[in-house]
Amino acid sequence: MSYVLGIDGGGSKTVCILMDDSRQVLGHAEAGASNYQSIGVEAALKSIHSAINAAANEALKFTNIIKISAICLGLAGIGRSGDIEVVKNMVQELQNSQFLPITWDLQPANIVICHDALIALVGGVGHDVGIVVAAGTGSITFGRNQQGETKRVGGWGYILGDEGSAYKIAVAGMQAALKSYDGREIQTSLVQDFKQHLGFQSIEELIEVIYRRGWGVKEIASLAPIVDLAAAYGDELANNIIDNAVEELVIATSTVVNAIFSPNSAFEIVTTGSVWQGKSQIHERFTTAIVNQFPKVKVIFARYEPAYGAGLLALQSLDDI
Amino acid sequence: MSYVLGIDGGGSKTVCILMDDSRQVLGHAEAGASNYQSIGVEAALKSIHSAINAAANEALKFTNIIKISAICLGLAGIGRSGDIEVVKNMVQELQNSQFLPITWDLQPANIVICHDALIALVGGVGHDVGIVVAAGTGSITFGRNQQGETKRVGGWGYILGDEGSAYKIAVAGMQAALKSYDGREIQTSLVQDFKQHLGFQSIEELIEVIYRRGWGVKEIASLAPIVDLAAAYGDELANNIIDNAVEELVIATSTVVNAIFSPNSAFEIVTTGSVWQGKSQIHERFTTAIVNQFPKVKVIFARYEPAYGAGLLALQSLDDI
Repeated sequence: MSYVLGIDGGGSKTVCILMDDSRQVLGHAEAGASNYQSIGVEAALKSIHSAINAAANEALKFTNIIKISAICLGLAGIGRSGDIEVVKNMVQELQNSQFLPITWDLQPANIVICHDALIALVGGVGHDVGIVVAAGTGSITFGRNQQGETKRVGGWGYILGDEGSAYKIAVAGMQAALKSYDGREIQTSLVQDFKQHLGFQSIEELIEVIYRRGWGVKEIASLAPIVDLAAAYGDELANNIIDNAVEELVIATSTVVNAIFSPNSAFEIVTTGSVWQGKSQIHERFTTAIVNQFPKVKVIFARYEPAYGAGLLALQSLDDI
Repeated sequence: MSYVLGIDGGGSKTVCILMDDSRQVLGHAEAGASNYQSIGVEAALKSIHSAINAAANEALKFTNIIKISAICLGLAGIGRSGDIEVVKNMVQELQNSQFLPITWDLQPANIVICHDALIALVGGVGHDVGIVVAAGTGSITFGRNQQGETKRVGGWGYILGDEGSAYKIAVAGMQAALKSYDGREIQTSLVQDFKQHLGFQSIEELIEVIYRRGWGVKEIASLAPIVDLAAAYGDELANNIIDNAVEELVIATSTVVNAIFSPNSAFEIVTTGSVWQGKSQIHERFTTAIVNQFPKVKVIFARYEPAYGAGLLALQSLDDI
């Protein structure tokens, strides 16, 4: 029996799955963040170590000896070859650790390092062909075809891009509320909605919250559901914002389709991230627009989580040998 | 002879003008930043003290004794009554200082504390009726009518607003370049322009500059001329960005006009800030749109600087008594 590790390392948590070669998950655990570019290599390694340790301990309930034959790490922000080297060194450190209840039998080809969009795609559809449209705090669209060609659109972050993300929806909502308050825009329930949600006397207090208290990207993104809900209740400006987000996500997706698929091919597009949970029918609006353009495409919610996708990619690396 | 001080306190510098009651400027000096909300009261006070000291020493070439009868401080971010109290205490500290070569004779009514848009308006047109459209790193539109009624639109900062500002133009330019690079948009010279200006091998290096090197709002805003120049050379996406900036500034301005002026009244709109220096005819585009809507209005560049406007407001407070 072969065992593999699938690791999803992000800015808020690290998820580890320990899987056997029949795709059976024997261990599943979470630990802290592992985006080493922000928190440093040591802290990231600690989170990954901790997640593996917990997953392995869970798996030990089912089997006595765990020899890991492959590992796949999908990490946010992985791009350049320099990044790959850093993560390879982290895997070496994990193999040297005396504190993990596992043994290792890793060939270089069985250490798979990739960015988080690929494991989200593979986990989302259950195999490695299709497109993932991730719209959470940030946004990115990524596809892979039968020939293994890939195409990425977006993922440029909250200043340079992230169109259709929760951050962008929240910011557009606050901007619309302030424009309305100024008299530059029609009336919108967003003014009252933000005031109520944030306990404000006046919408002007947004200045205090956003700049002086130094809210970060995640805190701001957490306000997106206010805009989504206002849209669901029929507010015009909020609906414009949701329509605009959908349009951006549709353009990003069709750019990926046109780059690596033929317009009539049948494949799945998996949507991941908090934005798709909206009550303003954002998923339906997106699906309608996509199926209109590409009639054989199916838009789905994720079947499995990204860490599971990482596990599948680790298993796949065993077949490749 | 009465003497007054006009002070323009901002995030990058403090300007002080010492003026007599015939509007003659006897001293003019600059010092460091004085936005106390960011740098603290002590550092702000030091800058103001230093600017007054240098202006007074200059004025001492023309006169032996300088007794200050009024002071006006126009400060960025001044709004609530709490702010006013802080600045009043700063003025008290200045009066207590043994290191300034001036004496004071200030009645409470001759301590004028206001936000920077008002002194920009008064300096810009030379009196206190009209509209100022400030578009530099940030943007704000502010007007005052014959009756003393005021209206502010915008000024919500780089996350919540600042439509038409250099920051917004620069960010829109980078977003357009990356969308084009992704294949989401038509070709644009902006990709090459940013690469060349920043010495990049690939436009993807924007990520490195904007997030990892932690560029601030001013550094980002300093890229606006790249977009302006691309527009001047006929680039379509760059021109869309400039058109959009103009449209935002026109909407903000007409909102102020409609709030406090009658559509047929004759007054001046003064434009201040780096955006108006653009080579893509941004000032002409704005003027055409405004005069189209309000035929009797004149759009001008600033006659005097904001510190001079503060001096005029200080003089005005003497008349009011």
